[in-house]
Amino acid sequence: LNKFKAKVVGLAKKVKKVGKDDPRRVVHSFKVGFALSLVSLFYYISALFAGFRTSAIWAVLTVVVVMEYTVGGTLSKGLNRTFATLLAAALGVGAHQIAILAGEKGEPFLLGLFVFLLAAAATFSRFIPEIKARYDYGVTIFILTFSLVAVSSNRTVDAFELLQLAHQRISTIVIGVAICLLTSVFICPVWAGEDLHKLVAANLEKLASFLEGLGEVYFGDKVGGERMESKCFPQAYKSVLNSKSNEESLANLARWEPGHGHFGFRHPWKQYLKVGALSRQCAYSMEALMSYITTNERTQTPADLELRKMISSTCKEMSIECGKALKELAASIGTMTTPGVCRHNIAIAAATTTLKASLSEEGIPSMILETAITASLLSQVVQCVP
Amino acid sequence: LNKFKAKVVGLAKKVKKVGKDDPRRVVHSFKVGFALSLVSLFYYISALFAGFRTSAIWAVLTVVVVMEYTVGGTLSKGLNRTFATLLAAALGVGAHQIAILAGEKGEPFLLGLFVFLLAAAATFSRFIPEIKARYDYGVTIFILTFSLVAVSSNRTVDAFELLQLAHQRISTIVIGVAICLLTSVFICPVWAGEDLHKLVAANLEKLASFLEGLGEVYFGDKVGGERMESKCFPQAYKSVLNSKSNEESLANLARWEPGHGHFGFRHPWKQYLKVGALSRQCAYSMEALMSYITTNERTQTPADLELRKMISSTCKEMSIECGKALKELAASIGTMTTPGVCRHNIAIAAATTTLKASLSEEGIPSMILETAITASLLSQVVQCVP
Repeated sequence: LNKFKAKVVGLAKKVKKVGKDDPRRVVHSFKVGFALSLVSLFYYISALFAGFRTSAIWAVLTVVVVMEYTVGGTLSKGLNRTFATLLAAALGVGAHQIAILAGEKGEPFLLGLFVFLLAAAATFSRFIPEIKARYDYGVTIFILTFSLVAVSSNRTVDAFELLQLAHQRISTIVIGVAICLLTSVFICPVWAGEDLHKLVAANLEKLASFLEGLGEVYFGDKVGGERMESKCFPQAYKSVLNSKSNEESLANLARWEPGHGHFGFRHPWKQYLKVGALSRQCAYSMEALMSYITTNERTQTPADLELRKMISSTCKEMSIECGKALKELAASIGTMTTPGVCRHNIAIAAATTTLKASLSEEGIPSMILETAITASLLSQVVQCVP
Repeated sequence: LNKFKAKVVGLAKKVKKVGKDDPRRVVHSFKVGFALSLVSLFYYISALFAGFRTSAIWAVLTVVVVMEYTVGGTLSKGLNRTFATLLAAALGVGAHQIAILAGEKGEPFLLGLFVFLLAAAATFSRFIPEIKARYDYGVTIFILTFSLVAVSSNRTVDAFELLQLAHQRISTIVIGVAICLLTSVFICPVWAGEDLHKLVAANLEKLASFLEGLGEVYFGDKVGGERMESKCFPQAYKSVLNSKSNEESLANLARWEPGHGHFGFRHPWKQYLKVGALSRQCAYSMEALMSYITTNERTQTPADLELRKMISSTCKEMSIECGKALKELAASIGTMTTPGVCRHNIAIAAATTTLKASLSEEGIPSMILETAITASLLSQVVQCVP
């Protein structure tokens, strides 16, 4: 029983953390509840018109599947659903008309063949990356609607009845999509584009705080005999290493969004992906530096520490100034202004030159340093091998 | 018109490439078509029993949404759909019975409240990572079914009729799931577990071929004045950098799969994720080494080339032996055997020692090398900053 209690407490803590990490999640949950209640209300009202009754349930279904966390997600699913339904319904009716020509016996076979071919072709199209990224949901709905119309319509041959049914179905779907869109745009909207914008800036800040931490701790005043623990450095940069899929899906959703705040409709979202790729490149180098420091900390000799003391102030300046430059860059992304010619960059260049000079003073000719480093990096790679 | 023609040709090439890259995709498309035709057949047959007619359409719907590329995906969606429907239907009927107690006027309000609360709670639960990874689809179906039952059942108060409807709905869903499962298990199955297994081994091979390429090209016999192009090295290792999300989703799906081939039901899939994380770590170091080589190629001095000639044979041995060790590791993962004490590892250790010795012979005391390298790596990080 105690074990069960501990589990419940653990779960409660986790739930609280999920809500605290991003309070918009709580708001989103209530938004979904609200949209569903609204569409239920629509169902009750439409039930007054007897004809609309069975179709109205499609509005409820639409709200459940279309409502997404971001505006872009809701919009892309809503548009995908609406247009895929229209296209598939038209094709389905067309296929049915052709199948009728084959006579009573040939009809089911011909319809089965149509369903087979269209489903196979549509499923295959989902493997094409561009379609997968933008129209995946639409393709599912397309197959769904086409099969439903083609298969079930051979019972209701009356063309007028069929059109009426299609009209009802589509108008209820449009109503469902409209309810979702209104809820997600007008009640505390979560814009994918804004999230992408903030994510890219935040990632730069994480890189910056790693560099500042490195400057303060590793090259700080306390350089001495005691060993550095890798835990002293800000570890946040590690999350940048795997940011690719998140950034790409946000950029995909952002493309659907209308203009909002500082962002126009055709805001160059792809540029964010470029900055993101550069940030990852930087994070890879940091990770390599980090693993070099932590694996070699234990083998440092007194001579090593001696040299470290010599160059530590230059290195400290280099990394702290570089961190500041990154923070400025992050801030200028945040405020969407062009960063000025940065005084930090000048400081970094000066420090780099000083560093090279002091290394060659110490008897390490910088001419052959590069090859030596390449060799050492290779050893590092070799050490990584599990 | 020519532009249009070029586009069509481009699309055709892309489609061909998608199919050629993995022919199982073509097979999967036909499998979906087959399953849908099968379920349509079921629809025709069941139409003979008049009562089953409207419910049978749910089998078609189930096949379209449940059928996934891997067996694990189909199984997880099918189980999620079945159990979520059962649970939600029971809760929906219960909520309806409670709502009836509130009288004719209170009933819709109470039902609306239930829908609001349950939808909000269920939506929030999707933000918990564990639930998101395994039961995301189930939660959607839960909200969907609960809303449909709770909202629509207040028209059909007859309990017997309701039970009959529920029975029909659920048996059609089970039939749909069964058709999907049979198709995906018995016709050219794609196992997520096997894919994960192959992916992890292939990633190790990619790392190995980078090391071998580095040994052959950069430290090869041709070391001389000409500049190395980064294109000479195998670039495949770059895809390892972003392998995390792919590996994790495969591991999630593999957990649902029954035993198949060499893999038992509770195969330790998490171990693959560990190997994957180590591979990524290795790839990060390679990326850092790579960017170091390509950015510094142009500034190499004659003295540098001199040293490179001196140590190139040792470095060549190191990287080629390391590549071989990795290939052996990949092969032993492939055949699921424990790798023996590897003779390559001994060669690597020997080469590493030789390298250190020859570096210190060349006037670079290895004692202070580490600090110098740390400093240079820092410069590298600084250069990465956009």
